[in-house]
Formats: sequence, C-alpha cells, structure tokens
Amino acid sequence: MIKVGINGYGVIGSRIADAISLQKDMELVGVSKVHADYVARHAKSKGIKLYTAGDKSEFTKKGIPIGGTFEDLLANVDVIADCTPEGTGAKNKSLYEKYGCKAVWQGGEEHEVAGLSFNSYANYDSARRARFLRVVSCNTTALIRTLYPLQSSFGIKEARAVLIRRAADPSETKKGPINALEPDENIPSHHGPDVQTVMPEIKIRTVAVKAPTTLMHLHYVEVELDKEASKEEILRAWEKHRRIAMFSFSDGVRGTAQIMDYARHMGRSRGDMYETAVWDNLSINDSTLSYFQAVHQEADVIPENVDAVRAMLSPETSALDSISLTDTSLHIGIGRTT
Amino acid sequence: MIKVGINGYGVIGSRIADAISLQKDMELVGVSKVHADYVARHAKSKGIKLYTAGDKSEFTKKGIPIGGTFEDLLANVDVIADCTPEGTGAKNKSLYEKYGCKAVWQGGEEHEVAGLSFNSYANYDSARRARFLRVVSCNTTALIRTLYPLQSSFGIKEARAVLIRRAADPSETKKGPINALEPDENIPSHHGPDVQTVMPEIKIRTVAVKAPTTLMHLHYVEVELDKEASKEEILRAWEKHRRIAMFSFSDGVRGTAQIMDYARHMGRSRGDMYETAVWDNLSINDSTLSYFQAVHQEADVIPENVDAVRAMLSPETSALDSISLTDTSLHIGIGRTT
Amino acid sequence: MIKVGINGYGVIGSRIADAISLQKDMELVGVSKVHADYVARHAKSKGIKLYTAGDKSEFTKKGIPIGGTFEDLLANVDVIADCTPEGTGAKNKSLYEKYGCKAVWQGGEEHEVAGLSFNSYANYDSARRARFLRVVSCNTTALIRTLYPLQSSFGIKEARAVLIRRAADPSETKKGPINALEPDENIPSHHGPDVQTVMPEIKIRTVAVKAPTTLMHLHYVEVELDKEASKEEILRAWEKHRRIAMFSFSDGVRGTAQIMDYARHMGRSRGDMYETAVWDNLSINDSTLSYFQAVHQEADVIPENVDAVRAMLSPETSALDSISLTDTSLHIGIGRTT
Amino acid sequence: MIKVGINGYGVIGSRIADAISLQKDMELVGVSKVHADYVARHAKSKGIKLYTAGDKSEFTKKGIPIGGTFEDLLANVDVIADCTPEGTGAKNKSLYEKYGCKAVWQGGEEHEVAGLSFNSYANYDSARRARFLRVVSCNTTALIRTLYPLQSSFGIKEARAVLIRRAADPSETKKGPINALEPDENIPSHHGPDVQTVMPEIKIRTVAVKAPTTLMHLHYVEVELDKEASKEEILRAWEKHRRIAMFSFSDGVRGTAQIMDYARHMGRSRGDMYETAVWDNLSINDSTLSYFQAVHQEADVIPENVDAVRAMLSPETSALDSISLTDTSLHIGIGRTT
Repeated sequence: MIKVGINGYGVIGSRIADAISLQKDMELVGVSKVHADYVARHAKSKGIKLYTAGDKSEFTKKGIPIGGTFEDLLANVDVIADCTPEGTGAKNKSLYEKYGCKAVWQGGEEHEVAGLSFNSYANYDSARRARFLRVVSCNTTALIRTLYPLQSSFGIKEARAVLIRRAADPSETKKGPINALEPDENIPSHHGPDVQTVMPEIKIRTVAVKAPTTLMHLHYVEVELDKEASKEEILRAWEKHRRIAMFSFSDGVRGTAQIMDYARHMGRSRGDMYETAVWDNLSINDSTLSYFQAVHQEADVIPENVDAVRAMLSPETSALDSISLTDTSLHIGIGRTT
Repeated sequence: MIKVGINGYGVIGSRIADAISLQKDMELVGVSKVHADYVARHAKSKGIKLYTAGDKSEFTKKGIPIGGTFEDLLANVDVIADCTPEGTGAKNKSLYEKYGCKAVWQGGEEHEVAGLSFNSYANYDSARRARFLRVVSCNTTALIRTLYPLQSSFGIKEARAVLIRRAADPSETKKGPINALEPDENIPSHHGPDVQTVMPEIKIRTVAVKAPTTLMHLHYVEVELDKEASKEEILRAWEKHRRIAMFSFSDGVRGTAQIMDYARHMGRSRGDMYETAVWDNLSINDSTLSYFQAVHQEADVIPENVDAVRAMLSPETSALDSISLTDTSLHIGIGRTT
Repeated sequence: MIKVGINGYGVIGSRIADAISLQKDMELVGVSKVHADYVARHAKSKGIKLYTAGDKSEFTKKGIPIGGTFEDLLANVDVIADCTPEGTGAKNKSLYEKYGCKAVWQGGEEHEVAGLSFNSYANYDSARRARFLRVVSCNTTALIRTLYPLQSSFGIKEARAVLIRRAADPSETKKGPINALEPDENIPSHHGPDVQTVMPEIKIRTVAVKAPTTLMHLHYVEVELDKEASKEEILRAWEKHRRIAMFSFSDGVRGTAQIMDYARHMGRSRGDMYETAVWDNLSINDSTLSYFQAVHQEADVIPENVDAVRAMLSPETSALDSISLTDTSLHIGIGRTT
Repeated sequence: MIKVGINGYGVIGSRIADAISLQKDMELVGVSKVHADYVARHAKSKGIKLYTAGDKSEFTKKGIPIGGTFEDLLANVDVIADCTPEGTGAKNKSLYEKYGCKAVWQGGEEHEVAGLSFNSYANYDSARRARFLRVVSCNTTALIRTLYPLQSSFGIKEARAVLIRRAADPSETKKGPINALEPDENIPSHHGPDVQTVMPEIKIRTVAVKAPTTLMHLHYVEVELDKEASKEEILRAWEKHRRIAMFSFSDGVRGTAQIMDYARHMGRSRGDMYETAVWDNLSINDSTLSYFQAVHQEADVIPENVDAVRAMLSPETSALDSISLTDTSLHIGIGRTT
C-alpha cells in the first residue's frame, strides 16, 4: 500500500484525497488544512484524518479532531501531493526532503520545483521511481491530452491555441471580473512553454483571455499536421485515449454549461468532468485541424495525480495499467456520448 | 410496488426519476422525452426506458431506443409525475384522466390543476389517496419548510419575505440577464398566496427580484412570532425537520457558492442540495425573527415529489415514515454541519 | 469662487471634479492621484491639474505633467473632497487640519470622522459653515431621498429595507462574485444606523445582500406611515424632490439595465444617473407603503457633494438655491419619464 | 441637406439618429418605432419626430406625439437607415423601392440585400451614389479597421481571428448565458467571409465564442504579413486611421471594462467607444503579427453609417473629407491615450 498525504485540502486537494481513497493500492493517511472551515467539516464527516500547520485550537473549538501537525503527517507518508496555493508549494520542498518523502506538485508551481513535469499518456515512464514530480496545470493537461495522440499518429508541424479561461472557481467568490473580458498581457502566453515541459519537441503558441464564468476553460486549437488526416482518422486517434470525451452540438451541447450538466447527470463525484471535452464539429482544412475543447479546471488533473503517485512508487505497474486502474476507479470512459 | 412514470425529463424530471429508482416501494416504469439530446443519451446510459410524444425517428437515428409513445407509458403506470415546462402541465390532465392514472404536478402549474397543493411536513395527511396533487414550487417549498415549524412551535402573526431569485438554471443558457437586477412587477408577488395553498391560515407577504446567478435562490425572511422565542428554541424547532440544513459564516460559508460547493463535497447526486440552507446568524428583535435562507432550485422539491407519490398510493405509510424513507434514500440529514 | 481640491481621482473623485467644474461659484484647483494610469491620462486630456502623494516620476515618464505634491494642493484650496478608498480617508484628517482647509469625506468613512453626516434635502442647514462634513454613502443617500419626503409629509412609524448591492463597480474587475449571492453577515446591516446619522429620529432596519452585477444597487423598501396616504399623495410628496426619478414597467423598464440605458440615452456625462430611480408600481396596504428603488452607486452622491461644499463655504446660499444650482448644472430633473 | 430617416430606434438606430443630427449637411427627418417604451420617451424629450408602423394609440395614450405612419416617413426622406432587428431588414426593401428612397442596412442582413457592403476606409468610393448599401457588422467593421491598413502597408498572406463575443447588449436582459462559454458551431465562422464582402482579396479564417458579458467583443488576431514590419511600422500604419485607439496594460487597462470606463470618462455620448480599441502589447514573430482588439458593439458602426449616407448622397465629398467631418462631429481621435 502506497501511503499518501495531501497538503492543502481545497479544490484540487479534496478531489485527490477522494481519488486516492478509491485506489486499492493506496492509502490516504491524512490531509493538511490550515483553517477549520466548512471543507474541514465535510472532511471530518467523511472520516478523513486532518493535520494542521495552523492553529490547532481553531479546529478543536469547532469539534473537528486534529491528528497532529503537518510534520506528523509528513513522517507517516511515502508521498505527499502538494496542493497548496499557486507559488507557495515550492517553499515546502526542503520540508519534504527533511522527511524523506516523495512529492507531487501541481501546475501552479514552476517546472523547476521538480525538474520533471508529468502527463499520464505522454511521459509516464520517465516518471517511474521519480523523487519529485509536477503534474502540469489543468489547461496544459487538456492541451497535451488532445495534442499527444495527434503528434503520435500524424505528427504536428505547429499548434496554436487560444485559451478562454474561467476567471474563478465556483467557490472563489472574491475574484472577478463580473462583467468584462481580460486578455493576458503576454503574447504568447506561458501555456505553450508549459506544454513543452512534457512534449519538448512540439512547436506551440498560445494566448489567453479571462472571461466572467466559473465552470470550465474553453480552448480553440489549430494544429498543422505533418500529414493529412480525415475526420474519422482524427477521431480514431483520440478514441484510444479515454480521457477525451466527445460532445455534439446536435445533442444540444451548446457550451460549457451543458457539459457540466452532463457530468452531473452521469453521477460523477462533485459533478466532476475528468475528461477533456471535445466538440465533434472539428474542421479539417488541408492538413490544418481546428477544434474546440473544454476543461473542467477543478477536476481534469485528478487522474494524472493518481497516476503520478503510482509511477513514483509502484514501478512494476505499466503506464496503461495505471491509467486503466485510475480510470475505472473514477468511472472515466463510462457512458461516452458518441 | 408503485409504478411511476415521469413526463418531461429535464432539470426536475431527471432528478425525480433517480429518486424514484432509489425507493424500495416504487418502480420507475419510464420517462417521456420530446428531444433526443444529451440528456436522453445519459438516460439511455443509465438504463432508463424512454417514451416519446415527439418524433420517434429522432431517437432511433441516434441509436437511443424508444419504449413507445407517451400514451404507452401512461397505460402502464399508477402515477405520473408531470415535469413539463411551466404552464403546459395542465393541458395533460385530460390524458391522465383518460388513462386513469394519478398525477403529481409541479409548482409551475396553478393550484387549481389539482385542487390540492402539497408539502411533506405541512399537509402529508391531506394528500393521502389523492387522485391529483401539486407539489409547490422550490421557493414555496423552502418557505414552508422554515415557516411551518415556527408556526407549529410559536405561532406566526405575520411573515414577510424578499426572494432574490436565480435568473436561470445552470443549463438554461438562453436566459438572462447577464448584468442586471430585475424586480418583480407585482408587489406583493405570487409566492405568498402560494404558501397559503398549503398553509391557508398564515399571513404572509412576499416580493421577488431576479439576479444574474444560476446557483440558488436566496430568501430574506422576517417573522413576527406569536410568542417570544430564544435563538436556541428556534434552532430546536428547526432541528426536528431534517430538510433544513444550518450553515455558518464562521465556517467560511459566505453565500450560495459555498453551500453548493459543500453539497458537491458531500457526494450528493449531481451535487444537489435537497435541504433548505439556513444561515445561523438569525436575529431576534422582540418577537420578530429574521434570517437568510438559500434554495437549490434544481433539487429542493425532489423529496417532496417522492413523498407525494407515497401519500397518494401507499396509504398505510405514515407521514414521518415516508419522510424518513425518502430522506434516507437521498442521504438527507447526513453530515449536518452544525 | 470656492477653491476646491479632490483627493483621490477614482469613481467618485473624477465625477465630483467634473461637477465642481460646472459650478459658477466654484473653481477646481486640482486633483490628487497616486498612479499614472488611464484615468490620469484622461484627466490630463481634460486639462485637470494633477498633484500626487505618490511617485512623481511615474507621471513624468508617461508625459503627464504634475502640478506638485498633495500638500501643495492642500495649501491652495478652501476645501478638499476626500475620495480616497474606504477607511483611509480618516487618516488624512490631521493633514487637513494642518493646512487649515475644510474637508468633505465620503460614506466609506465613519460618521465620527466629521461628526456631521450630510444629505442636501434632509439637513443642509446644519452643514452651513461646517469645518468637516461627511456625505453619506450611495445606499444611505438613496434611502434618505425617498424616506425624508415621506417623513415630512406623512410621518414614518417604521421603515424596513432589503438592499441588494451590486458587488463591484464596472471598472473594479478584480472583485467578485461571478456567480453567487452573498448575504451580509450582520442582521440588521449598518445601513439603518447610517440613515440615522442624518435622520436621527427615524426607526429603520436594513439587511443587505451582494449580487453579481455592476450597474446599480436595488432596494426593496417597506414604510409604515403614521397616516394613510394614497398613491397620488405619495407621488406628489416625491415629485417635489428632483433627485427622485420615477420609472414604469409599462415603459419596458424591467430592471437596472434599462434605467442605466435610459441615463445613457439622456446624454448624461458618463451615462450617469444622479437621481434615485423609483418604480411606480408602489403598493399601499393599509398604511404600509412598499416600493423598489435603484441606485447608481457611481453617481448618486455627486450632487450632494457639490451642495456640501456650498453649504460649508457659501453661507448666504439657501438650501433650495444650492440644490437648484447643482441640479441645473447636472441636468437633473430634465426629461423625467413620468 | 440630406434628408435622413431611421427605421428602428434601438441600440443602433438611436445612435445613428444622434450622429445624423450632429452633421451639418444632414437633417434627421424622423425615426420609426414600434413600441411606446422608455426609448420612445427619451426620443420625445430630445425633440426627435416619431413615426410608427405599429399601433399609434399606444403612443398617444402615453402622451408621445406621432408624426405619422412609417410610410409617411419614407415619403419624406432621401435615405433610410434600416436598423430593424437582424434578418427583418431585407423584408423592407420593396417598400424602400416603392418610395424611391435610398437605403443603408446593417450587418445583421445578408450582403445580398444591397449587393454592396461598406467600410469607410476600405471602399468608400465604390459606395458613391449607390442606391442600396450595407454597413458590415460591428465585428466585421472592427476587423477591417485594423486589417485594411496592414493590407495597404505590408500586404497580408493570411489572417486568423478568434472572436470572443459579448452575449448580449447591456439592455438585452432576456438573453444569456449567465455563466457559460459557447463556441460557434461553425468552424470557420461567418465573420471571415463577411470581411471578404469588403476586402474580397483577403485570405481570412475566423471562429467565434460567446461569453457572458455585455460590454464589448474581444478579438485575438494573427496576421501573416507579406513583408516583415517592426512594431513601430505597424503602429504608424494604424495611426493614420483615427478609428483605431491604442491602449496599454501599463496604464491599468486590463480588459474591456477599463476601455468602456475610459470612454465614459471622455464624455462621449452614452459613454460610447466608436474606435476599435487595440492593446499595444502586439507581438511580432517573423512576419506574423498578433494582437488583441476590443469592439464596442453598440457604437463602432455609427461613424460608418454616417459616411455611408454621405457617400450615397453627397458625391462631391471625398472619402477622407467625409471621414473627417464624421470624426470631428463625434469627437473621434480626440484624447488618444498613446
């Protein structure tokens, strides 16, 4: 049993905790949380053991039992998933080194924190037995999921993507804008180079815009393929990857709201959509493929985090076996619409 | 086994279908749906039998099997839950009479369609063996849930409520406004008289405002009680009713977003919140009680629909037994925060 | 000529600056601004003299001339309108005392900063020759505008108001929520006591909710009058006050969006709505009056600020003369819809 | 004096009416309006003569005088600007032919309605003395404004644009979505071919996404130029065209909200932004230019409509003279930020 701890029990951390609990080869030792808020209460109600680097009395006052300090947690795990707020995860590295535990960071951190950036389909094997790993961000993960199969099957001359980002997560109510569109000052944006931390050979250029919505990011992607491919060949290349789900305008799926509604109907935990959602109105013009995809920013990196843990600590498991174990546990690929 | 059909498989119909499937004394015969959209696909993937009053070929073209016409469904059920769009349900009454099935309408229809409006705690017994029934709307249900216990325990001299309504459901993306507040032209609004269809003796006055949000309605309620009551007494009166869930600002629950986030964390189907959510910062000024409550408009009438079916067709079951069966099946009251 | 300076050239400060420029008995000496942003550029393009308490080089690098330091401005004015961010205005008081200038604060500051809170119709005379003054907030100003005439004409036994607040100004794009309703933790909210700083005798109770919109606040107000009044009598009492504008659902004014659209059509500077907008669907039930009103938070206190300056420094002008001068200069009361 | 009538006095029609009134060589005869709403009231208050194809009594009941029927208006004008809702303008063509008046349609109609699509800088001369003309849509106008100077100065090999569209105008409060992103089903979208109705030689490909905002459309544009150009050369090519306004992130202009705020500060009628707003963080990569631009959909075609009227009926005026007259009257190009 791989003993896993979670540092930071928010949008991502709480989801990784649940996913880890579903794995037969892993054990969730506990999670670290700073504040005794409603999320802490639900962790308690689920029987998840809480540790804190903050003020223990805040928890005990509210009747939420605390298993120990954050360092107590570190002393008892093989690997820690660091889900602390963007940019703060790197500061914890020395502590992980002190306790000799492995660590998985999220995409809010720089590639350099781990020196190795991860995606399950693209570079699972390079992560095997790694000490430190970084699962790339939700946007980057989604881009790699659709680009990697295209690269493998047809070759990519150049990819271009416009990322229309949800401005805040549903529970992040202090963040705006309420009524505006905000382009990213950097042209190109950092997302292209971030894809290259996993697929170093790809030529890719991205820009980003923030929109006043909370549900999903939306990507418009244009890919110049090395060789021409028909729509059927493209779909076949993607079909082999369960973490892509196809949707259709003719089914009334007009936008991100219907995709999230579909995920809720499917009975997913928290109404989550782990897959990258791709509309099937893809267009092929000579050897340039164009398509829209949507990314549930709260959930799409969860399966990759589970695989990352397995790659680091269960070296005998193959990439495809790990992906399969993870996907089955999360019901990924069940009930595909097309 | 009570044989149940659903007419209209949208926001409410799809949730009633799932809830019926969870009852040991009920059988979901099938649902009627007009269009072969993504919701029809997920019904298929869940093994729910589809009937249609529309064009059957639309379904067969997409590989979605159809069990028969809407009238075929009517011929095979004891009761139909009519979840068709607001104002169209009444037109189906003669058909229900023709097939001799009982019917439960939703709050979008007038009280007169059934002559009997229903809430589980307030008037279960009057619904026993009824032929036709109407479950009051989400807003009305939520008001009754907190007012009825107050009425029973302390008496109500007068109630006043301001309803800040979510302008559209998450999947209703054609409806606005995007950036405006819109007061209801009618002062008072129709919600007060609608409460009186269930609690005829109550003096209540409501107004309504539409706000650009999709998550929940928010109510501000002021109740002049017949006798003074302490905060503890109020909370105790509400505690007996599992369909009220208390939330606290001190837990970081600042608004409707955190309540819905909590529901998602709790693993509810579709991230639903069946309970009326009440903040515990209630204020008592002489004998006037003031509080805020939030209503998940997609889900809060679901338990009442299940109870309504049972009241009509399982006369030997008591009100509290039905409520208990329903709540257990939907995990209502599990993991209360306070 | 009254020499006026503005400290803080943002949403409120920039509007006061323009309004002061339109007064024949006032001179805008200059405005103080910390950052050389797009608002500073437009001030330059309008020929407004800029002073800064910040880094002068930030301005000169961008070719925006700076007239001097903030203290240079203070040395040259009779009165300063303090429009700095909420809660920081009080810190400037000692500086105003040092330079012997009078000061007008905004409603974001506490009553105690000036010891005197102001509304043009309600207490102009008490502000005459005052050294320090506070114009109450946009919400409070709007409440006083409709309550004061009711108080004067009919007497008020008790007033209750629910304030549905726009969560951010149009240009405040860092603030949310994007999709949630957030009740104010305090029941009652601070707005009632704030009304009492101007109308100490009134019994009033308010609560507040934040909604994801940027245009206007919306108030629902219930007033128990001392004596019964007909709709016509109410309208006549309000008609005497030009800073109330009546709107009608039958004209297609469904909400705050149409009111702001109307203001833009009327050719107001910045599309501003200085008046409190009241819907004419007011309801009278015995002696309880109920109505909805909307408040353009960016603009509604501007006329009061102009009057406040005149009350302090032009003691020979009567209240009604000042109001008249201000209103004429801002085109208030022109083109009333009803 | 060119005698001008307006058919449809909504978002676009009301703005054209005001712009026509400001031209020394034009006379606004009147406008046609169907309903007696708040927009009709403000037309009355501005002294604009109203005609109606609807029910005259609706107006007279509200005290809004009606000059006659729509056909009365047609009998008295040289040219009519058709600003009726998308797709209905074409139906009026036979009526315009019957009355022998010229007509300008908006971009919601097909190119074929007039056979000639118009942009002031790109093809003014071809519109000279035309009987029928169509001013292209706000999105198309904005694209042509920045592409045409690039084409003229450097040549364009290929242009690609992603249009993130505001989902509704501020006053269109019945339209959503409130919280979703919705890609246009068509890849490519119709906007590229629409640009080609004015610039037939250009190779351009566009896609579109709808976002929950009301302020402006946002475009991301990539242009492969025929010859390399420096940032300075690009800016110089655009500078010659007053209907482009440059904005800078370093001035705090983070998105569409600050651009509209700037327009309001500049004292424009209705806070309008006639110019296409371009951020100066443009990127040049080999000979590929990338930039963001924003389009105020309510206003950006107004100057083009004025020029269109002049091209049709004042053949002696040159293109540049017309543009200059129009821009001066609307204060376009005054107070450029950079």
